[in-house]
Amino acid sequence: MSDIEIRPATAGDIPAIVALLADDALGAKRESPDDLTPYRAAFARLVDDPNQHLVVAVRDGRTIGTLQLTVIPGLSRRGATRSVIEGVRVHSDERGSGLGTRFIEWAIDASRREGCQLVQLTSDATRIDAHRFYERLGFEASHLGFKYQL
Amino acid sequence: MSDIEIRPATAGDIPAIVALLADDALGAKRESPDDLTPYRAAFARLVDDPNQHLVVAVRDGRTIGTLQLTVIPGLSRRGATRSVIEGVRVHSDERGSGLGTRFIEWAIDASRREGCQLVQLTSDATRIDAHRFYERLGFEASHLGFKYQL
Repeated sequence: MSDIEIRPATAGDIPAIVALLADDALGAKRESPDDLTPYRAAFARLVDDPNQHLVVAVRDGRTIGTLQLTVIPGLSRRGATRSVIEGVRVHSDERGSGLGTRFIEWAIDASRREGCQLVQLTSDATRIDAHRFYERLGFEASHLGFKYQL
Repeated sequence: MSDIEIRPATAGDIPAIVALLADDALGAKRESPDDLTPYRAAFARLVDDPNQHLVVAVRDGRTIGTLQLTVIPGLSRRGATRSVIEGVRVHSDERGSGLGTRFIEWAIDASRREGCQLVQLTSDATRIDAHRFYERLGFEASHLGFKYQL
């Protein structure tokens, strides 16, 4: 694991990130790796936002993971800043390698550096293995996550 | 309900917002309405961020509700922008008045104006009435919400 670099994503990483997003039971139905136009537009919208941290994990020039960390200042909980983790993907060849753990630990450390008091994420109710994974890392499944499609 | 204004919060609204945050079964343990210092610092951190929309509902000069809407651009779901609703509070005198519904409908409309494809929120697992409320408004409890305290 020592030769893995976790770094901010660049525009050149978009094809690899989209491939990772699509290589997933739920993502396969939701992504369009053959048309990168909407992804490039989204990247342009987030890249200059200092509260958005879209990162990739790279080993030997190969992109093997991605996640997005968003920093959200707010008034509740005595003015607590929280972070939200979204879009966590680890390449299928690398699952079970410890990269997921290292990735989430990176996100926790980055949240601390950003002055956050709370890290949160939602996980689809069908992703039972992911729930066990987050609980092992110290996350508490204290909430229900609601979504509304526009 | 026609005389309620929903508008961006200003620094002058901080005491009323904190009173609303504290007037809640969970918030009572987490907030410090007698010391506004951390709230003023948090407000300064979010007020100039174009992706943060901290709003209040006001009637006859009285602040009767607050919520925070955060816009999060991202690559997943074909470059979907999502919004996250946090810190929803309605004054205890106003619960059951329809303000909650109007407030969430405002957040959904604002999300649409911001180009979002998805609105999401988490609700503490103990807030059973809130879960029914969000489901009635069309939200789906499709996810588990995990938190990690730093």
